[in-house]
Amino acid sequence: MGKNLTKRSEDYSKWYNELVVKADLAENSGVRGCMVIKPYGFAIWEKMQAGLDKMFKETGHENAYFPLFIPKSYLSKEASHVEGFAKECAVVTHYRLKNAEDGSGIVVDEKAKLEEELIVRPTSETIIWDTYRRWIQSYRDLPLLINQWANVVRWEMRTRLFLRTAEFLWQEGHTAHATEKEAIEEAEQMMNVYAEFAEEHMAVPVIKGVKTESERFAGAVETYCIEALMQDGKALQAGTSHFLGQNFAKAFDVKFANKEGTKDFVWATSWGVSTRLMGALVMTHSDDNGLVLPPKLAPTQVAIIPIPKPGPEINEVVEKIMAELKAKGITVKYDMDDRKRPGFKFAQHEMHGVPIRLAIGKRDLEKGQVEVARRDTKEKSNQPLEGIASHIEQLLVDIQDNLFNRAVAYREEHTTSVDNFDDFKSVLNDKGGFVKAHWDGTAETEAKIKEMTKATIRCIPLDNEKEAGVCVLSGKPSEQRVLFAKSY
Amino acid sequence: MGKNLTKRSEDYSKWYNELVVKADLAENSGVRGCMVIKPYGFAIWEKMQAGLDKMFKETGHENAYFPLFIPKSYLSKEASHVEGFAKECAVVTHYRLKNAEDGSGIVVDEKAKLEEELIVRPTSETIIWDTYRRWIQSYRDLPLLINQWANVVRWEMRTRLFLRTAEFLWQEGHTAHATEKEAIEEAEQMMNVYAEFAEEHMAVPVIKGVKTESERFAGAVETYCIEALMQDGKALQAGTSHFLGQNFAKAFDVKFANKEGTKDFVWATSWGVSTRLMGALVMTHSDDNGLVLPPKLAPTQVAIIPIPKPGPEINEVVEKIMAELKAKGITVKYDMDDRKRPGFKFAQHEMHGVPIRLAIGKRDLEKGQVEVARRDTKEKSNQPLEGIASHIEQLLVDIQDNLFNRAVAYREEHTTSVDNFDDFKSVLNDKGGFVKAHWDGTAETEAKIKEMTKATIRCIPLDNEKEAGVCVLSGKPSEQRVLFAKSY
Repeated sequence: MGKNLTKRSEDYSKWYNELVVKADLAENSGVRGCMVIKPYGFAIWEKMQAGLDKMFKETGHENAYFPLFIPKSYLSKEASHVEGFAKECAVVTHYRLKNAEDGSGIVVDEKAKLEEELIVRPTSETIIWDTYRRWIQSYRDLPLLINQWANVVRWEMRTRLFLRTAEFLWQEGHTAHATEKEAIEEAEQMMNVYAEFAEEHMAVPVIKGVKTESERFAGAVETYCIEALMQDGKALQAGTSHFLGQNFAKAFDVKFANKEGTKDFVWATSWGVSTRLMGALVMTHSDDNGLVLPPKLAPTQVAIIPIPKPGPEINEVVEKIMAELKAKGITVKYDMDDRKRPGFKFAQHEMHGVPIRLAIGKRDLEKGQVEVARRDTKEKSNQPLEGIASHIEQLLVDIQDNLFNRAVAYREEHTTSVDNFDDFKSVLNDKGGFVKAHWDGTAETEAKIKEMTKATIRCIPLDNEKEAGVCVLSGKPSEQRVLFAKSY
Repeated sequence: MGKNLTKRSEDYSKWYNELVVKADLAENSGVRGCMVIKPYGFAIWEKMQAGLDKMFKETGHENAYFPLFIPKSYLSKEASHVEGFAKECAVVTHYRLKNAEDGSGIVVDEKAKLEEELIVRPTSETIIWDTYRRWIQSYRDLPLLINQWANVVRWEMRTRLFLRTAEFLWQEGHTAHATEKEAIEEAEQMMNVYAEFAEEHMAVPVIKGVKTESERFAGAVETYCIEALMQDGKALQAGTSHFLGQNFAKAFDVKFANKEGTKDFVWATSWGVSTRLMGALVMTHSDDNGLVLPPKLAPTQVAIIPIPKPGPEINEVVEKIMAELKAKGITVKYDMDDRKRPGFKFAQHEMHGVPIRLAIGKRDLEKGQVEVARRDTKEKSNQPLEGIASHIEQLLVDIQDNLFNRAVAYREEHTTSVDNFDDFKSVLNDKGGFVKAHWDGTAETEAKIKEMTKATIRCIPLDNEKEAGVCVLSGKPSEQRVLFAKSY
């Protein structure tokens, strides 16, 4: 199967598109820009959801559900928000179809025109803050810590599976606080939750930072983000957390009586990650043979293949191994399908990124051993059957660590400090990756650099050291380097 | 709080509407017919989802995700399906808004008109079978057993929280099979899964049966259903499972090569339950004081209230009880908020339907006891602290059983066999509930009875005994009684 996959070195973009389909993650549907997430891809997303949901609940958040539709007038209430989101969206104008009078099929019933158009939510700040107005009266009602798992629609012109689709799945947290300080702490906390999830579950190292003003979420005072680096040297924004100030509270008139009894506008945050994380996962770890999955997110962690086919003796040993693995909470699949040859199965599990593959034949049984192959390094070794479950348990930890360390090493190799614009351009074009450079802090320079190089400021890293320098483009003074890259 | 709730005997419908809001389950949003599911309501729905999802996976199903939008032409492909679903739906006609030229705000950009309108899915058979055409070539690809958790939209004119909303949450299973027999078995299996979930998790007894032709799902050959009886004597359809024959396979040209190598159309089922189950749950068990929840679905199973307020001695004992309960997998909440009096807390937990309430004061501590109150019967008793966790564990089982048995008893009392139309009408009007009556099997008689009495045939029970008789309306021969009721 891997043989049919375009190599990364040949055409990274083509490799990605093919891999997503061949590894049964997703495919395009008959609806422009909307994807079908296939069962195998969805099983990975479910694991991500479960991991994130647990972390949200541990930090005091509850789930709720708000309407899919947003009245057009709601979007207009927050000035910069409407500029950012009202433009490319799905607009519901009618609520009925009817049979065409000429018998040509069904047509929109013009009599069923909505008085006010409804927008399919591109994000839910407006409908949620319209609700919060009813829920919040007093400081006793705060903080309000709510998350929603939902589908959203943004009418993208150029779409790519997981990375940019018209409809995508995500979670959006929306919190309300009595003080500015508390809201900022919440926004920072959720950025940290995302970073922890990306690094510990997805094995994807990320840089935590804040966005420049021009890259900020429409309606935010500050946008925190986590930025990851893909194998082609392009950055991918993996999650954002916004401190919204009192912007939405003012737009939707949400005030609370504070402890002193006076009324004040509520402080807000919102934060989200989406099925885009699937794209980050694929592009960080996978190789020319197919998907590579970190054990913590693999739907099947261990695949066992009988050589050359199942039989009573082999089955008996396999059942024992499986029972031991399951007792350790490891998910294992015995691939007994005797219509397929072992080689075909090897390629299939490789394409699916199953972290560990065991192969057992009669000769192995005689020797009391089993062949263990790890997907990440493709190393194979014979291991004694005695104690195999413990060996695998440790190996899964090692694979998880190795994937993370490998990605960190790649990122370190592909992070370059440059001090002039020629170097800036040549590093971007020849080597790719993150470029650390001085910037004069103006939106004008940022826009010029983007126009000239396609690189954007991915973030101002939170752990940045202050360092005096001059802007690579304008030569004006700068007090710190920021992180540039071409990006998804 | 219960004092502010309308009594069921006064106005059942008003009681329901108030209860759903006061118990923090859901509320109407600013978008016509769309509800906000509040965190407490959503926590119950999450427990339902988790229970059902586990049962689906245990019966071999996988989750996936299909597009929100359905091209208008897809809906037209299955003739009866389009009649049933294309009429009242949300139609997306444009993909962009723009600033109005007169500065009056944002308006639809007429230049961004879609070539083909998109319908917000009312159900997903069409988009899914369009996908299955690509996934199914051979009998080796079958059965295909897929479920989707999603939001759907049906433009209902009169809406009620959970029972009938324009947007609702549900799951929809869509399976493909090589043989008619296997598809029928699948449809029956899922009806049984729904019945088991309703009875064992929700403590809602249901009648399993098939729908008459006029009540069938648009596009189905047979619709299996589970029907529950609410406390006002009205029936509620709690779930349906459809055998779709080859209708969708033919409409979307989905053929497979069978073992003999010849091509045949695929056999299909679909099945779904929705947030409507929340309405069934509320209306089956709750009382004039608020919600009553079966322990298996209660977000908090035990609430502990310090009398009159928390203190070191009480807290120490409570912490010990909580640790013991948590070790048994029981969810428990210590209500320490000292801004609220015990009486207020009692009423609040009562409104929320928390199955067991413990109250502990200093005098209880001296006696080594705790007051245990159960929500279902409102019985209170003092129990020794020694062994309290085991006592509560058993009590939760008793409450779950009691709720189910109480609902079964209500249904039995409200199921009446009648043999003439005068009795039929008077039972329906005076007593309500299920009416078992002979029917001549024609859609005409069914429609007449509905017009005259508002009662519909809820189902032909699967375990029906054959019994010769004459139709209550037409007097024509009938071979079995069917189940009539007014319904939600």
